[in-house]
Amino acid sequence: MASAEAVAAVVEAGGAHVPGLMDALEARLVTVAGSHGAVLGEHATATIAAGGKRLRPLLVFVAAGPAPSGHDAALRAAVAVELVHSATLVHDDVLDAAVLRRGRPTVVAAAGRSIATATGDLLFSRAFAELAGGGSPAAVRVLSDASSALVQGELLQREDAWKLQTTRERYLRRCDLKTARLFRAACELGALAGGGNVPLLGAFGEEIGIAFQLLDDVLDVSGPAERTGKHRGTDLLDGTVTLPLILARERDPELAGLDLRSVRTPEAAEGVCDAIAATGALEAARQEALAMVAEAKAKLTALPEPSQQAALELVADGVVDRYA
Amino acid sequence: MASAEAVAAVVEAGGAHVPGLMDALEARLVTVAGSHGAVLGEHATATIAAGGKRLRPLLVFVAAGPAPSGHDAALRAAVAVELVHSATLVHDDVLDAAVLRRGRPTVVAAAGRSIATATGDLLFSRAFAELAGGGSPAAVRVLSDASSALVQGELLQREDAWKLQTTRERYLRRCDLKTARLFRAACELGALAGGGNVPLLGAFGEEIGIAFQLLDDVLDVSGPAERTGKHRGTDLLDGTVTLPLILARERDPELAGLDLRSVRTPEAAEGVCDAIAATGALEAARQEALAMVAEAKAKLTALPEPSQQAALELVADGVVDRYA
Repeated sequence: MASAEAVAAVVEAGGAHVPGLMDALEARLVTVAGSHGAVLGEHATATIAAGGKRLRPLLVFVAAGPAPSGHDAALRAAVAVELVHSATLVHDDVLDAAVLRRGRPTVVAAAGRSIATATGDLLFSRAFAELAGGGSPAAVRVLSDASSALVQGELLQREDAWKLQTTRERYLRRCDLKTARLFRAACELGALAGGGNVPLLGAFGEEIGIAFQLLDDVLDVSGPAERTGKHRGTDLLDGTVTLPLILARERDPELAGLDLRSVRTPEAAEGVCDAIAATGALEAARQEALAMVAEAKAKLTALPEPSQQAALELVADGVVDRYA
Repeated sequence: MASAEAVAAVVEAGGAHVPGLMDALEARLVTVAGSHGAVLGEHATATIAAGGKRLRPLLVFVAAGPAPSGHDAALRAAVAVELVHSATLVHDDVLDAAVLRRGRPTVVAAAGRSIATATGDLLFSRAFAELAGGGSPAAVRVLSDASSALVQGELLQREDAWKLQTTRERYLRRCDLKTARLFRAACELGALAGGGNVPLLGAFGEEIGIAFQLLDDVLDVSGPAERTGKHRGTDLLDGTVTLPLILARERDPELAGLDLRSVRTPEAAEGVCDAIAATGALEAARQEALAMVAEAKAKLTALPEPSQQAALELVADGVVDRYA
């Protein structure tokens, strides 16, 4: 998602303003990361350069629409959501003592816990500075609410670790807090920048955010590792119970009786992944995500601009493509 | 500082609006801490209840002045600076694996690194939400710049740990980033809320902030432990080189040749504290701080309201009283 092809597709569908803003985003992220001393600069820059899909900024830009009057605010919002996203990744890696992310050493692995915690804090505070520069308190409020939700989602995940009896409601709540609220914020910030329909675009963002997380959790079970950059079953090894496992346990008595803590090696995790896949739970989870994306797209028919509707549909499809 | 007596003194000098705002601050901090789920609520509430001196909020209120039109913005600003201050303490304790703060178990000791990191992140994002609610992007910008400085200051301190050749300039830069910028922000936010002189009050805040840190560092060497709640010489044991040691090394060849890493026990640290005190470095450092406070107070003569000037002078004196 947000690959050159995805951006090209969004442009064709009516988002001609997007590529220029995506370039401006990259330039601004580099400037922000490099402006706070050599040590932080090195690690903040590496974090941001490691990239990722820039899906959240893309959502901001498409939700903002093509009117140039909104571009400054949209750019600030896009930088801010990407900084918040990066900050949480850096802090998560500290807590998980993670060694690699996106195939590169994490900040905590390269520089230790102090510098990694500080790097996350810095990215966090720069996000709000960036947004505040645009002069919209409503925008700051949207981002800080999303940030608080993210933190709660992370905690919920840690609280629920190793709990096989996690319900689907609880799982969906976690997806909402941990992932979808920042997608919602990206769309709301875009709508605020472009004078669009904030509640409608926010609801769209939240729905595709949950679908995104759901498909991510499916991918962790289905693989292949070449696509995800991780072994299959890393969630299982971390004790994270996701929808595929919840659904599979309803279908397979052996999985229902599984002791998650006994799954300790990548090989054992792959075995459980195979057992989950054999129940058809992956397809069921995938169908749920597709239904959410369809529902999110249906909301867009109320938008006044068909070209914006088409562009947002493409972004929604991009979320689904992760799985294809 | 900011004890009942200090607040009473500020009121007498013309800050009759202060006690009501200090009460409103406590109420609002409790509400904010309790509004984000049970786990975070418990630890955020404990962090905030553990209190501290509320010196930064007091600065906001006095800098805002008595006009009721500025009180809502001042209250938001005071809550926000206290939340940022608390967030950095929680994260510092994670990095230091600190067991006690202000005589109570730290969040990291009580609940582990994950919850403590999340608690800090939450307090941080709530600070910006609080400020954004007041509708002033300039205020958000001031706070986020101060937060970035805080992070850089923390890192500088860790970078310089165990380095006896730390210069006084570098030490003062660290005090500025780590402490004084948030004092500056508190005064600037107060001035923004009350329509006051932002640069003048900001410069006042920054100067007493450096003096505050300097006196704190003197206290760490001078004790007594009953006042500070810590053993004398904790900075030495942490490898933190402060002005008393920098000055003492210029005066005592034995201290100049000290190997800081050889100071490993509280008893050894107390011995070095005695050696520092014997050089007269404590008095010299204290005089520097007092000179800064005097300079900060001298700036205030340009203020139009003598009552506000008197109240700010009292706050400045409160900083000095820490040492008395």
